[in-house]
Amino acid sequence: MAPITNGRHIFKEIPSGYPIPGKTTVYDGSQTVDVDTIPLKGGFLLKTLVLSIDPYILARMKAPAGSPLVRPRVNNYGVGVVLRSENPAVKAGDHLYGRFPFEEYFVQQDAKAFTVIENKEKLPWSAYVGAAGMPGQTAYSGWKKYANAKKGETAFVSAGAGRLVVQLAKRDGLKVIASAGSDEKVQFLKEIGADVAFNYKTTKTLEILKKEGPINVYWDNVGGETLEAALEAAAMDARFIECGMISTYNSPYGVKNLMHIITKSITTSGFIVSRAFPEFTQPFFAEVPAMLAKGELKVQEDITKGLEHVGEALLAVLQGANTGKSVIVVAELSTY
Amino acid sequence: MAPITNGRHIFKEIPSGYPIPGKTTVYDGSQTVDVDTIPLKGGFLLKTLVLSIDPYILARMKAPAGSPLVRPRVNNYGVGVVLRSENPAVKAGDHLYGRFPFEEYFVQQDAKAFTVIENKEKLPWSAYVGAAGMPGQTAYSGWKKYANAKKGETAFVSAGAGRLVVQLAKRDGLKVIASAGSDEKVQFLKEIGADVAFNYKTTKTLEILKKEGPINVYWDNVGGETLEAALEAAAMDARFIECGMISTYNSPYGVKNLMHIITKSITTSGFIVSRAFPEFTQPFFAEVPAMLAKGELKVQEDITKGLEHVGEALLAVLQGANTGKSVIVVAELSTY
Repeated sequence: MAPITNGRHIFKEIPSGYPIPGKTTVYDGSQTVDVDTIPLKGGFLLKTLVLSIDPYILARMKAPAGSPLVRPRVNNYGVGVVLRSENPAVKAGDHLYGRFPFEEYFVQQDAKAFTVIENKEKLPWSAYVGAAGMPGQTAYSGWKKYANAKKGETAFVSAGAGRLVVQLAKRDGLKVIASAGSDEKVQFLKEIGADVAFNYKTTKTLEILKKEGPINVYWDNVGGETLEAALEAAAMDARFIECGMISTYNSPYGVKNLMHIITKSITTSGFIVSRAFPEFTQPFFAEVPAMLAKGELKVQEDITKGLEHVGEALLAVLQGANTGKSVIVVAELSTY
Repeated sequence: MAPITNGRHIFKEIPSGYPIPGKTTVYDGSQTVDVDTIPLKGGFLLKTLVLSIDPYILARMKAPAGSPLVRPRVNNYGVGVVLRSENPAVKAGDHLYGRFPFEEYFVQQDAKAFTVIENKEKLPWSAYVGAAGMPGQTAYSGWKKYANAKKGETAFVSAGAGRLVVQLAKRDGLKVIASAGSDEKVQFLKEIGADVAFNYKTTKTLEILKKEGPINVYWDNVGGETLEAALEAAAMDARFIECGMISTYNSPYGVKNLMHIITKSITTSGFIVSRAFPEFTQPFFAEVPAMLAKGELKVQEDITKGLEHVGEALLAVLQGANTGKSVIVVAELSTY
């Protein structure tokens, strides 16, 4: 076969505020690849199917050199299909999940860096970068490890990224307060069981929390003023799970009431997605894909087609313009 | 016996900044008591010997109504001797440790609120409001519960109140960086084993931490800018033990780099002195008084005589003018 375009989306410069599509990251269609002849050197050739777009990509783009978030500045979880392999651990036709460069085709040596997805449930591949993938694992393992949830307690989950958390908290018998940035997202939060859902752009978070709290568990995707409100409305011995601080990636905010951590004996636990806890991997893959297939967990996806549009998709996620889990479809989706 | 003065030091008004001796708290010498005839109503009469002065008293004075810190706004740990008792749980001559009103004589009903001190080690009673009392228990139980210390790690202990923590960390085999607000205090930190001790008023905390860190455990008595520096210099998976934020009691400070909690997977655990963990009470009293008696743990005390001077003593602690654990001696000390 003749060489074909191997499009990629690359990091260009550190954004000073929001990323600027075409400036801070750019699409490059100048590379080509011959998928039949490119040397594998004992590795395997992957064709990228779907890539996940998540807010923390901006934190990665802005992280100072030497931070564990850098290197390279744009890659993320994805699913691809093996086209050819010289590595006995994977074979042509296998679907692999792992960290992907933002590139249509690439050769890899290390099969251990990827997980072969069996997909017995025949979910769309995009599910594996969403509720059945890293974001799902983040929610699942973070909740199981840190929430220490007790029936009858109250949880506050900030921002739409915590939709799976809302559903896990409801399954554990908690009252759930959830916030999102549009009335449409608020409606979805109610559909998935949030007892109280509100639009933080039109309602004061602190007022809601004072009325509906105090809160025993706070799942933080937002940081900044929202974290301040959660500290103010926290119950004694509250657990704060620090998963993201999307409001501060662009404009740092000084949190002034950290003293509540002491007076209310609050524990805050931070963790990053790439360090999801191995002890929960097995139970996660045993439980969550099946729950998704049965419709016991509900998700929404926001599909963008084409590697060219990574910059716009990321900006939308950061500005809250997406309506569901943001996914780039690089090549045609299939459920086998 | 004729009635005698029963002096007390009382909360008068919420300080706007530092407490003002004679204004925000005042000495009142107008009350009298007849220790031989005051009715006990089944309780017991205590004569206060020593009272502890700790920075968090200001937080208590400023806490909003309804906070667990209020009610009343000035009391603290003390040691007293029972003069008379109608309660079979305590007898005249017993020395009791617990929360004391700032008053020379008072009648109590609830013996369970106090601990009888045997003092086999014959320590001065003041030790029981210091390293052998609440501050010691705070350091001991907080360290044991949250530090998760591993030999060879690095700990940073801010401010003089963490002297016991410095020694516990050294016993666990850690490199210890410690800060204090005067060269004299720095000298004492070196004497008790700190590997790096510095005067935060004349040296930049962040520079020291960058040079001597990264830090795996941070014992925070200070908050504010120091907490910010510790976050900046934290290692992956660092544990932050939040015990006090003395720098912010008077002027709130917005901490802008909380994102490190996420990117470095930091756990922060806040706790308040009155909630020291019951599981460590027994080992604490088994270990620490004996270590003090043998000189294996070193302490310094800053003794102020007379209830009249509570305001000045508290102000000195808050401004860092004390040189050791601040204690008010209300009545003559004795070691039996």
